[in-house]
Amino acid sequence: MSGDRILVIGGNAAGMTAASRAKRLNPSLEVTVVEAGSRIAYSICGLPYYLSGRVSDLSDLQLFTPDSLMSERGIAAQLQSRAIEIMPSQRRVLVEKGSSGKCEALGYDRLLLATGYRPVIPDIEGLDLNGVFTASRLEDAEAMESYILERKPKRVVLIGGGYVGLEVLEAMVTRGLEVTLLDVAPHVLPSLDSNMSQLVTDEIVAHGVQVMTSRTVKRIEAKRDGRIDSVVLERGMLRIPTDMIFVDVGVLPSVELAMNSGIRLGSSGAIAVSDMLETNMPGVYAAGNCVETTHLVSGGSVCMPLGTVAVKQGRVAGENLAGCRTRFYGAVGTSVVKVFDIIAGRTGLTTKEALACGFSVVESTIQSRLRPEYYDGKAKATVKIIAERGSGRLLGVQVVGGPQSIVCIDTAATALCAGMTVMEASQLDLAYAPPVGILWNPFLIALNKLKY
Amino acid sequence: MSGDRILVIGGNAAGMTAASRAKRLNPSLEVTVVEAGSRIAYSICGLPYYLSGRVSDLSDLQLFTPDSLMSERGIAAQLQSRAIEIMPSQRRVLVEKGSSGKCEALGYDRLLLATGYRPVIPDIEGLDLNGVFTASRLEDAEAMESYILERKPKRVVLIGGGYVGLEVLEAMVTRGLEVTLLDVAPHVLPSLDSNMSQLVTDEIVAHGVQVMTSRTVKRIEAKRDGRIDSVVLERGMLRIPTDMIFVDVGVLPSVELAMNSGIRLGSSGAIAVSDMLETNMPGVYAAGNCVETTHLVSGGSVCMPLGTVAVKQGRVAGENLAGCRTRFYGAVGTSVVKVFDIIAGRTGLTTKEALACGFSVVESTIQSRLRPEYYDGKAKATVKIIAERGSGRLLGVQVVGGPQSIVCIDTAATALCAGMTVMEASQLDLAYAPPVGILWNPFLIALNKLKY
Repeated sequence: MSGDRILVIGGNAAGMTAASRAKRLNPSLEVTVVEAGSRIAYSICGLPYYLSGRVSDLSDLQLFTPDSLMSERGIAAQLQSRAIEIMPSQRRVLVEKGSSGKCEALGYDRLLLATGYRPVIPDIEGLDLNGVFTASRLEDAEAMESYILERKPKRVVLIGGGYVGLEVLEAMVTRGLEVTLLDVAPHVLPSLDSNMSQLVTDEIVAHGVQVMTSRTVKRIEAKRDGRIDSVVLERGMLRIPTDMIFVDVGVLPSVELAMNSGIRLGSSGAIAVSDMLETNMPGVYAAGNCVETTHLVSGGSVCMPLGTVAVKQGRVAGENLAGCRTRFYGAVGTSVVKVFDIIAGRTGLTTKEALACGFSVVESTIQSRLRPEYYDGKAKATVKIIAERGSGRLLGVQVVGGPQSIVCIDTAATALCAGMTVMEASQLDLAYAPPVGILWNPFLIALNKLKY
Repeated sequence: MSGDRILVIGGNAAGMTAASRAKRLNPSLEVTVVEAGSRIAYSICGLPYYLSGRVSDLSDLQLFTPDSLMSERGIAAQLQSRAIEIMPSQRRVLVEKGSSGKCEALGYDRLLLATGYRPVIPDIEGLDLNGVFTASRLEDAEAMESYILERKPKRVVLIGGGYVGLEVLEAMVTRGLEVTLLDVAPHVLPSLDSNMSQLVTDEIVAHGVQVMTSRTVKRIEAKRDGRIDSVVLERGMLRIPTDMIFVDVGVLPSVELAMNSGIRLGSSGAIAVSDMLETNMPGVYAAGNCVETTHLVSGGSVCMPLGTVAVKQGRVAGENLAGCRTRFYGAVGTSVVKVFDIIAGRTGLTTKEALACGFSVVESTIQSRLRPEYYDGKAKATVKIIAERGSGRLLGVQVVGGPQSIVCIDTAATALCAGMTVMEASQLDLAYAPPVGILWNPFLIALNKLKY
């Protein structure tokens, strides 16, 4: 395999993991990473903690620069290089350098598409005004930070209540801004069922945030001087004065390059791949937030824009780029967000998703302690279990509670990955000592309460 | 089933859980709990936290008194009532009341033995002196507390370094006593392999405790006034002056009643039961620390003196006492202890145990972060994975690290209960957000590092 050229399009979670893994398995590979943005290998998940002040320097969120990547791992990286088209017959990729329009063709023997996601930009008039932000690159954090320092906004409107939106919300409250959260959905955190997301709404309302759901934004209006003035809602033409706006209404897989090049997309709109993460174009792999993932509970192919899934796929792709034959099993959509004093997580299917997949569903929601009353009586979690009626197969779990309840989420995720039934999971032999657990943790209690 | 009499011998974890479950499933059952001690339904796990001062009142560790058990659950309880013999042909149990020698025969239709464990009392001269303690009942906590308040000991020697011993050790250090830990084994925490338990030794030594391993105590000597003077070691006749001694050298199943009554014991010395937790005597069930448990990794029948296993067995036994046919699947020996700033846990088999079971073993030990460096860089865990060579079947996991590493232990326990391979577990879809996790948690990193 000496002399093989590996080209990776996209220099973040999946792409960087794949490049590193391939190079480690076969140091003689010539590995090049091509990144459209101006940075590689950063943790976008750290963005809210830069805004909150916990992370003082953006470079703390960056694992590598092109120089350190070359010196430490022997991998080349080209920034501000946008891949435009794959020419499979020549095994070359056309890459546009900067915004000059100047193009270069880079050769490959094996190629990985790790083009990630892009934020959904809703169709709202005025969204291009200065003071409106999204969060998909570290540059967005810099722009928001500069804006806050220069303009000293007093009020911010968040449009959309997803994970990043809630983390940014906490950061803004921490900085003393008056925060309004607008969501087009009937409840925040659409990845949870409404009875669980209500607990999150309660938490953010308790921290002084105004939450308005089922609201569509009609337009954003500016003052005469061009500064943000207000958000105008469709219904009732309500006007919410604000100095700054943050938009987080979801993400979509970045598939332009794949589409331009004739690579097949799946029904979800993301790139279709085999269980070895190969596309329909021989020698071309894809991994991360741009691909479809097998949902281990539903069996369907879905978009799962999660960093955790992206790095695992990146690792598998890297092994296959290096000539191994490693399989990616799939995932169960496990995710979590911390907002103020609680965390909210989910794994597997929500009730709504399970019904949409055709399952006959039973569910139970309980609240219970995470620690013995005599040790730390305040720590509690609410756990919702969703299972298939009759078989008792576990379909999904949602948890909202103290930070210690992460253990319920990961335990449930593991049980789901293993295809366990409620009965099997209800006897899981989990750890207990008063400082770090409880004899029956809320996950076990919820399982034991569920009749199927 | 109306009119059925359920008799439960033993009023703690397994017994109380079974009694409550049976009564809940069939409120017409007449349920009676017979307890040899002077309390029922208490958390012995809370004892070290009473000694440390965190729990101010012993009643906080008690869920029920006989009165509240009757008024809240409709279950009768008799204290200081020691069951001596089962008379299966009459379906009666001979019970000795108090220390009077007065006996009473209690009738039953279904019987549960939940006689628990008893501490091993090593063969050491002077162990009966005032100032020598073990911990198996709340009375032990009261006795220690009184002794400390009255005698104001400056030094304490702990004999044995198991879970309770380490928790009591932390409590004694917290109270300002000078602590020496003596262990007959070559390392503390014999439930971990030595490379992992060394990390625990480092932690307690860093907190000023003197640790002496591979030491056998010959005798305990008293002053002329009867007070404790010193512990004398066999080797070299070393004498360690002390004012108080705590012994925790393991526990054994309490099987006297079963033996007296012709109930079959297993090769482990604990009561042998079917997967419905029935003994060889029809209508007589057994659960908790007095029974043998199927180890889901080795397939063997072993003693697992753990509260977590006891309550799960109690629940299953309670269902079967009420006429259901519920199966207990088995357990993987998951346990954890917190000592000072770390926790140490294990699940499945240690290397030593796996080799003894005849497995061909591969292992890897790694240290890694539990949180991103930019969020909480100090939180780390050391994880050891043990797997079967060739098949890659996961055999056991040990974790020592920050309290957040509980999530690694429970995730590993779930993977072991599910019979996962290293490859399957290495792709587990676990949760991540910077405040409560990391993209690759130490368990996943250890799995990915292991070659099998």
